[in-house]
Amino acid sequence: MSENRIVKTAFIGLGARGVPTLKLLCSLEGVLVTAVCDKYEDRVQNGIDAVKEVAGNIPFGTQDYKEVLAREDVEAVVICTDWNTHIPIAIAAMEAGKQTAMEVCGAYSIDECYDLVKAYERTGIHCMFLENGCYHEHRLALYHMVKQGVFGELIHMEGAYAHDLRSEIGHGLENRHYRFRNFQRRDGDLYPTHDVGPIAKMLDINRGNRMVALSSFSSKARGMHEYMVANYGPDHEYAKINWNQGDVVTTMIKCANGETICLLHDDSLPRVYSREFKVQGTKGLYVDYGKWEDQRLFLEEDPAKPVEEVWRDFSAEFRDKYQHPLWRKVKRENMLGGAHGPIDELVLRAFIESVQRGIAPPIDTYDGATWMALTALSEQSVAMGGAVVPIPDFTRGQWIDREPAPRSIYALDDICYELFDEQDVVPCKPYED
Amino acid sequence: MSENRIVKTAFIGLGARGVPTLKLLCSLEGVLVTAVCDKYEDRVQNGIDAVKEVAGNIPFGTQDYKEVLAREDVEAVVICTDWNTHIPIAIAAMEAGKQTAMEVCGAYSIDECYDLVKAYERTGIHCMFLENGCYHEHRLALYHMVKQGVFGELIHMEGAYAHDLRSEIGHGLENRHYRFRNFQRRDGDLYPTHDVGPIAKMLDINRGNRMVALSSFSSKARGMHEYMVANYGPDHEYAKINWNQGDVVTTMIKCANGETICLLHDDSLPRVYSREFKVQGTKGLYVDYGKWEDQRLFLEEDPAKPVEEVWRDFSAEFRDKYQHPLWRKVKRENMLGGAHGPIDELVLRAFIESVQRGIAPPIDTYDGATWMALTALSEQSVAMGGAVVPIPDFTRGQWIDREPAPRSIYALDDICYELFDEQDVVPCKPYED
Repeated sequence: MSENRIVKTAFIGLGARGVPTLKLLCSLEGVLVTAVCDKYEDRVQNGIDAVKEVAGNIPFGTQDYKEVLAREDVEAVVICTDWNTHIPIAIAAMEAGKQTAMEVCGAYSIDECYDLVKAYERTGIHCMFLENGCYHEHRLALYHMVKQGVFGELIHMEGAYAHDLRSEIGHGLENRHYRFRNFQRRDGDLYPTHDVGPIAKMLDINRGNRMVALSSFSSKARGMHEYMVANYGPDHEYAKINWNQGDVVTTMIKCANGETICLLHDDSLPRVYSREFKVQGTKGLYVDYGKWEDQRLFLEEDPAKPVEEVWRDFSAEFRDKYQHPLWRKVKRENMLGGAHGPIDELVLRAFIESVQRGIAPPIDTYDGATWMALTALSEQSVAMGGAVVPIPDFTRGQWIDREPAPRSIYALDDICYELFDEQDVVPCKPYED
Repeated sequence: MSENRIVKTAFIGLGARGVPTLKLLCSLEGVLVTAVCDKYEDRVQNGIDAVKEVAGNIPFGTQDYKEVLAREDVEAVVICTDWNTHIPIAIAAMEAGKQTAMEVCGAYSIDECYDLVKAYERTGIHCMFLENGCYHEHRLALYHMVKQGVFGELIHMEGAYAHDLRSEIGHGLENRHYRFRNFQRRDGDLYPTHDVGPIAKMLDINRGNRMVALSSFSSKARGMHEYMVANYGPDHEYAKINWNQGDVVTTMIKCANGETICLLHDDSLPRVYSREFKVQGTKGLYVDYGKWEDQRLFLEEDPAKPVEEVWRDFSAEFRDKYQHPLWRKVKRENMLGGAHGPIDELVLRAFIESVQRGIAPPIDTYDGATWMALTALSEQSVAMGGAVVPIPDFTRGQWIDREPAPRSIYALDDICYELFDEQDVVPCKPYED
């Protein structure tokens, strides 16, 4: 297959996240969006308009995703629907022989994660999990450092989805947003994949390592109630909602190779957006409270010599040194990307590249199933007062010997190719700033 | 009793922590050290010399703590021995009718924590737990803010004992330091009280709230082995030690009133010393990675208005505003304190004040038992793969209605008294900088 051919792609799910992602997809070289779909009629029209605006063509539009999957002019499908329809639509797409990509979410049950994996194993078609967090500039720099051994052997990792989403949750009914209902009924780490995705890639989860068990503790729920009282008044029906979702859910994970991970889900209190990311190994550690200037690094140069215990400014001293080649490319090409900047573009390009080249995507079905499953497992653990629950091995033992993901331009592995085709792979020189 | 009278005090345990603390104690107004004790003869002499040097008198010296407890010229006892003799000596001191204070450590069993509490209940003599972390400038400022409602209702707290102690652990045998053996045999949060102490005080633990359950996960152990290889060579006997203690132990705690706490024990990897303290409530949060300049604050002014999500520099903007009255006093009086600065002096003064005035100390037997017990519970949880274990209620139900600790100059409560005696209590005006 040629890596430059056009991939005829359908886009399913045209809400607040869908339309900007669709526009970005339309703008990419090698993509022709031939069909759009949403269960709401108004949104189907928004999707058609978006494609027309960006790419000039008028795609097929429908409220029934099965019509999309039946079309011959659809080779690949991007799914951006609500959380609880991601997996059934993905499985249907794989069964229909369409190369599939799915926006992120957490799973509602372990069984549906197994179903997703079985659909891949039955059809041979991967479902790429569009975890843009893996492509974040800071996390890719850290991945680059981890793979070069800068931190030594990894010991402990932390990450958070720490994001004040009260206005999104609180106005969710008007927006048809699923967090509004999910936060009322569920209690657990509802959205772990942005933090655990990059961590899992650094720890080689599903390729020589795996997550084996977790425990989740959930705090009381106060944030949404106080928000509703302040914004709608104490007598409004919204002020009378009982919110089950604890404001802060903490999850600890143990890995087969002995590393620990601590995740936070923290969406319903006032705060500064932050990933609270930590990478800790035998040679040093990195901590992060948000922007470049909130990142600190400590590296030990020689364990036989005493060192001065001083945080170093990651941004000023190390940003350029450890910039991932993909991000050098982003800056060289002035890539603007989508709603979340170039990370959306990188993750979509990775999907399209894998379709063009007929290779497994860098974030594959096993990755998606494993990361999504953490939500259902976290809910189980919280429901049992923090009881430890085992994390399934969705690879059924393959993780022990699985090879690294295929090399490609948009893979996470930091092999920056100036030229790339199947015959002639030439790693480029590091980018000169 | 007069609050200015001299308290005749004995000091037991004269190691690397003991002697500087003894010197500090000798220097305090209202204290006469009449006896010193250590199981090693050389240290007894060091103790006698220290008292003579600082205070001028020559105290009784012995290797047998029972001789100290039998003396009539000893009213109070400060215990600074190795971890596993704190509680038995404290109980013996209480039984002998001596007002007792004990340096910090974690417990080896739950039973010994109950024994400590029962000794108090039988004798009426408290054992003050000398947790200097409660008196730290930053933590007292936060306590002050919490009690003024700055953070709203507390939801989630974090703290760490994150301290590169490899050289101390690694040279422990020569130093007779207990960490050397403890790290080889145990696995859990061996030293939680510096972080959980201030958190427990902010959350009113044992006075209207309590910690009900915990789960601990321990990482692999690599740091000490790598340190030994680097410092002694791969063939040295120290390089062949099997270390059981995981490099990073993460502990989650749930409280009766719904708050969650996450603690880290991280002593055997290269790092910058940090408390990684977090206070998160319904109105904002504080995060800390070490020094004043590494502290960030976010406060929501009005939940009905959108706010700019920007960390504010705690040091520059809030340090003076929220300085605790005790620390205004420290700075006014240019208090220099002991090995860890004024915090050692504040905690010792609090003990002496409670003896002089015949009142319960600000950190009492129930507090000490509860905080120390976390170590034994963490070991149990780690041993069972992170299983949730219940945290005993050492107050046996009293926590529901217990009154706040008595007001005193060196209590944590921020009532700064210019003048203080039992008849005439006059809260002072806030200190004018």
